[in-house]
Amino acid sequence: MVDNSKEKAVILVSGGLDSATTLAIALELGFPCYCLTFDYGQRHRIELESARAVVKSLDVERHEVMTLNIGWMGGSALTDQSIEVPDTPVSGIPVTYVPARNTVFLSVALGWAETLGARHIFIGANAVDYSGYPDCRPTFIRAFEQLANVATKAGVEGSGFHIHAPLIQMSKAEIILRGQDLGINFALTLSCYNPGPEGAACGVCESCRLRARGFHDAGLTDPTQYRDKAPEVA
Amino acid sequence: MVDNSKEKAVILVSGGLDSATTLAIALELGFPCYCLTFDYGQRHRIELESARAVVKSLDVERHEVMTLNIGWMGGSALTDQSIEVPDTPVSGIPVTYVPARNTVFLSVALGWAETLGARHIFIGANAVDYSGYPDCRPTFIRAFEQLANVATKAGVEGSGFHIHAPLIQMSKAEIILRGQDLGINFALTLSCYNPGPEGAACGVCESCRLRARGFHDAGLTDPTQYRDKAPEVA
Repeated sequence: MVDNSKEKAVILVSGGLDSATTLAIALELGFPCYCLTFDYGQRHRIELESARAVVKSLDVERHEVMTLNIGWMGGSALTDQSIEVPDTPVSGIPVTYVPARNTVFLSVALGWAETLGARHIFIGANAVDYSGYPDCRPTFIRAFEQLANVATKAGVEGSGFHIHAPLIQMSKAEIILRGQDLGINFALTLSCYNPGPEGAACGVCESCRLRARGFHDAGLTDPTQYRDKAPEVA
Repeated sequence: MVDNSKEKAVILVSGGLDSATTLAIALELGFPCYCLTFDYGQRHRIELESARAVVKSLDVERHEVMTLNIGWMGGSALTDQSIEVPDTPVSGIPVTYVPARNTVFLSVALGWAETLGARHIFIGANAVDYSGYPDCRPTFIRAFEQLANVATKAGVEGSGFHIHAPLIQMSKAEIILRGQDLGINFALTLSCYNPGPEGAACGVCESCRLRARGFHDAGLTDPTQYRDKAPEVA
């Protein structure tokens, strides 16, 4: 096995189960992990507490929570209180899409990675059981990696950056089973787009439904607390 | 001439003469202009006042100053007080390089453009009389444009983004002459990496030297106020 213990990695951690599993994978690979969470004006601010709890439960080098308020732009149900989070499935790219979010997050991660001397960046993007966001596709990850290697001093003069998206082709059930294997405590994670102030999940948004379906397909019990009731999985 | 009056454009405005000229070019092309300035923890905070003054002197639709503190990362003389701004020419990429700065700025501009329904983004990057920053080269601009068009809903479903870097192959003297033609008041702009609290330029940093050389080569008088004296142009 490759010895990654001398290579730092920057990991984007949101508080959801995808990024928790991604962090566990990076640790399993032996990378000293530098975690980065964004306070970006999300309406579900309790997710920052989930991110802190997830990181605290694992053995990481450092955790930064950076304020990056993109909520003023509007344009997404996740940052704009005037747009409702839908409670039924939609076709196409949904209103919970936050314009250029992963591009912005990876760009800041890239800057930090360059400062740290890290060549590896991990993101929990997932193209399968996801909501059809353009910035969760393999073609996006490849385009960002190409950009990183012309945009930076380390990319131009050094050995280049690698953007890891280990979940990109996994189903939600596969992600949950992998996280379970690696010891993630899923009770610490939060997936809901519209949780209550104490972190209870709504049980009706697309993210709640994807999560419930994933635990069902994995044959595991989801420890999520719901405000009302768990989504029905037919 | 193409009628751009129905097309919004987002313009990155820093307070320097390059971005001021870029904004004037976008206005000349007929775009309704949405200006974006970052308060990114730069040590030369007086540049935010320059940005406000430049924008106010022109006819734009809107100006946003967004706090995006990347100073905590360190790694650059422009955001880290413990690294000195050099006062003599250096070879290679200098310490005033801010890791991934233009990538981060363009990413946020991309998110705002998508929200606004704008397809055009202008940046005053310049590859000629610049300091050797990797994110000021044509190859970087092209890579970002490619990324923008796979990263976003508007890029995937719509007609795509265009990243304009109209100064990229111009000399500093050419930029100054173009800005002069377009009516920019250069007294409002600030180029120095290490200005005094009132905005007086140091006269010794690379940016001061490039500016002085540019005005000299353009045959114009630079209205810059210096703390001590203007850089000597041999």
